[in-house]
Amino acid sequence: MEPAKPPSSIDRRALLASLSLLPTLSGMLLPAPAPAQTGVTGDPLPSWNDGPAKQAIFDFVRTTTDRANPSYVSPDDRIAVFDQDGTLWVEHPMYTQVVYCLGRVPAVVAQKPQLRDVEPFKTVLSGNQEAITRLSTQQLVKILDTTMSGMSVAQFEDEAKKWLETARHPRWNRFYTELVYQPMLELLRYLRDNAYRTYIVTGGGQGFVRIYARNVYGIPPEQVVGTAVGTSYGYDKNGRPFLTRDPKLLLNDNNAGKPEGIYLMIGQRPYAAFGNSTGDREMLEYTGAGDGARLMMLVLHDDVQREFAYGPALGLPDTKVGTFTQSLYDEAKRKHWTVISMKSDWKRIFAFE
Amino acid sequence: MEPAKPPSSIDRRALLASLSLLPTLSGMLLPAPAPAQTGVTGDPLPSWNDGPAKQAIFDFVRTTTDRANPSYVSPDDRIAVFDQDGTLWVEHPMYTQVVYCLGRVPAVVAQKPQLRDVEPFKTVLSGNQEAITRLSTQQLVKILDTTMSGMSVAQFEDEAKKWLETARHPRWNRFYTELVYQPMLELLRYLRDNAYRTYIVTGGGQGFVRIYARNVYGIPPEQVVGTAVGTSYGYDKNGRPFLTRDPKLLLNDNNAGKPEGIYLMIGQRPYAAFGNSTGDREMLEYTGAGDGARLMMLVLHDDVQREFAYGPALGLPDTKVGTFTQSLYDEAKRKHWTVISMKSDWKRIFAFE
Repeated sequence: MEPAKPPSSIDRRALLASLSLLPTLSGMLLPAPAPAQTGVTGDPLPSWNDGPAKQAIFDFVRTTTDRANPSYVSPDDRIAVFDQDGTLWVEHPMYTQVVYCLGRVPAVVAQKPQLRDVEPFKTVLSGNQEAITRLSTQQLVKILDTTMSGMSVAQFEDEAKKWLETARHPRWNRFYTELVYQPMLELLRYLRDNAYRTYIVTGGGQGFVRIYARNVYGIPPEQVVGTAVGTSYGYDKNGRPFLTRDPKLLLNDNNAGKPEGIYLMIGQRPYAAFGNSTGDREMLEYTGAGDGARLMMLVLHDDVQREFAYGPALGLPDTKVGTFTQSLYDEAKRKHWTVISMKSDWKRIFAFE
Repeated sequence: MEPAKPPSSIDRRALLASLSLLPTLSGMLLPAPAPAQTGVTGDPLPSWNDGPAKQAIFDFVRTTTDRANPSYVSPDDRIAVFDQDGTLWVEHPMYTQVVYCLGRVPAVVAQKPQLRDVEPFKTVLSGNQEAITRLSTQQLVKILDTTMSGMSVAQFEDEAKKWLETARHPRWNRFYTELVYQPMLELLRYLRDNAYRTYIVTGGGQGFVRIYARNVYGIPPEQVVGTAVGTSYGYDKNGRPFLTRDPKLLLNDNNAGKPEGIYLMIGQRPYAAFGNSTGDREMLEYTGAGDGARLMMLVLHDDVQREFAYGPALGLPDTKVGTFTQSLYDEAKRKHWTVISMKSDWKRIFAFE
C-alpha cells in the first residue's frame, strides 16, 4: 500500500470524478518543461509578482550563498524540500494517485476475477458515484493496497507510466504532468542554480512520483522521498532477481512522517521547506528549528478563477484535500513563515497559459 | 537498534578485544584524505597494480562513458554502490560499530544504573572477556539496541562523533577512520570524476556511517544507505521539535536487504557494485541483472601481512566477520564478477603506509 495521503484525509466527494477519468486519449510522458525564461531583466522568477513572497526567496538565497554573511550555508548543506500535491502541482478535486488507483480497479479485477463481487471493488466497478463517495477509509486503503502492491517493481512502473501518458485532468483536459505550477518550477531551478539540492518530500507514493519527477521537475528518483512500501527480493524462473512491492508500509510520509522521512532518506536538516497543508506542518517546523537563515513557505490556494480556492483558513469548507487550517495559518504568522497567495503572488500558474 | 551486521554474523571471539578498546587518546575526526595522486603517468588508480581488476575498472568506465559505445550510460543513471565493512575499511577483528556499542555500555549504565546488575550489561562491565565472547545473539542485539536508540538524533551523533575522534584500532593504534583502503578511495574518486554518483550501501548503521562518510569517503549523508531504525518526531519543553531514535528496525541492510534498500533510497538499479562478503551477494546479483555493461567486484582479504586473511574461500576458518564463502567465490567466477586480491591487486593498502 502506498497511499497518496492518509485515507482519513481523502475527500469522498472528490471521488465522484474518479470513474470518468479513465484514459480516453493516448500521449507521452511530458518532457521537461522549457527552462525558466529570465527575460531581459534577468529575473530568475519571471512568473512571480513582486511582493513579500518573491522578496523572501531572493533574501534567503542571497543571505545563504554570500560567504561574507554570517548566515552563509556551505553548498554541502544546501537542502530544500518540497511537498508535491498542492505545492508543485494541482491536487483538486482529488489527489492524482487516488484517481490512478481507482482507475486501476478494472484491470486488477480482470486479473483477479474473484474480486469482482467483493467490496469495495464491486462498488468501484458499478460506476455508482454516490456509492463510491460513501466508501469507508478502510475500503479506500484496501483499494490503494490492492492496486499498488503485489506486482514487480518493473510492472508497477510500466503501468503507472502508461496511465500518466494517457489520463487527463477533468477540468483542463490536460495530462496531470502538465498541471505543475510554473512559479514553482522556476523556484526549483533557481535554488538548484544556487547549489541547493531540491527534494520532493511527499505524502504521495514514492515509487509513483519517481516515475515522472525527473522529466517534470528535474528531480532524480533518489531525491524523491515519499510514502513507501517495502519490497521483497526474489528470483524468477530463470534465476534472474527482481523486487516485488509488498503491501507493507515502511514510511507514511505525512505530518510527523515528513521530518522522519527526511532523516531516513536525506540525513540533514533542510534550509528551506515548501508546503501547502497541515500535512506539511511538521516538515516546516523541523526546518525552522535549525540555526541561521531558514525559509519556510506555504502555498495558499485562493485563486478560484485560475486554479481552486479551498481551506478553512479562507473561511471555505474543509474539502480534506490539502487542508490549510486557521491554526496552520496562525502558526505561519507567529513563526514568520511566508504564505504564498496564488492569486496575488503568481503572475502565471501553468506553462500552458 | 541499528546493528553493524546481523548479530548472527558477529564473531564472538572478536569480542575479546572489545573492552581494551575504550579510548585513551583524544583526536579529531580525520579530514578528507589527500586527493589521489595521479602522478606523472596520469594514472587515476596509482595504488592498484596492473592486472585484471584494474583493467576491469578502466574497461567499465571507458565503455559506459563513451557516447559512441552501445553500452553508453547517461550520467543520470550512473550509480555505483559500495559495501563499507571489509570493502572500504577494515572490519577485523570486529565491526567497528560493535566495538563502539560495547564501549558505550559503561556510559549507558551510568545513566541507567538499574542495568548494572542485569545481563548482558553485567558481563560487559565485568571485563571478563571469556564471558563476553559467550554472549548470545539475543544478548548482543540487546546491547546494540540499548546503546544506539532511545536518545535524540543530535545526542546520538555527538556521542558517536566523540568516540570516532578518540577510539583506536588495536592492531595499528590508529583512528578507525584512518583504516580506509587507499585503492578504494581512488576508485570512488575516479568514478565520481566520471559522473558516477557513489553510494555506500552498508549493513552498518546508516546514522553511524553518515557521521564520517563525507570527511572520510567524500560521500554526503544522503548517499549512505544502511541498516536504519525509525525515529519519532516530538517537541522539547521549549516547543522545539526534535527526533528520537526508536528501537524499531526499518531496514536491515544486509543480503536481500541491500537491493531492497537500494530501491527504497536510490530508486535506480546501480551500474557498479562492490562488496566483500555473502552479505553483498544479492546487491551484486541485482546490479548484474541489469542490461548493458555492469561492473561487479568482490574484495578478497588474502593479505595477512598488510591486513588480514580470512574466509572459507581461502580454506581459512569462517570468522563470521565478512564471510567470503566458496559458494560466493563460485558464483563470482560463473557470473564474471571480478575478485580483487588485496595481496596482488593493491600496491598500497592504507594512506599512512
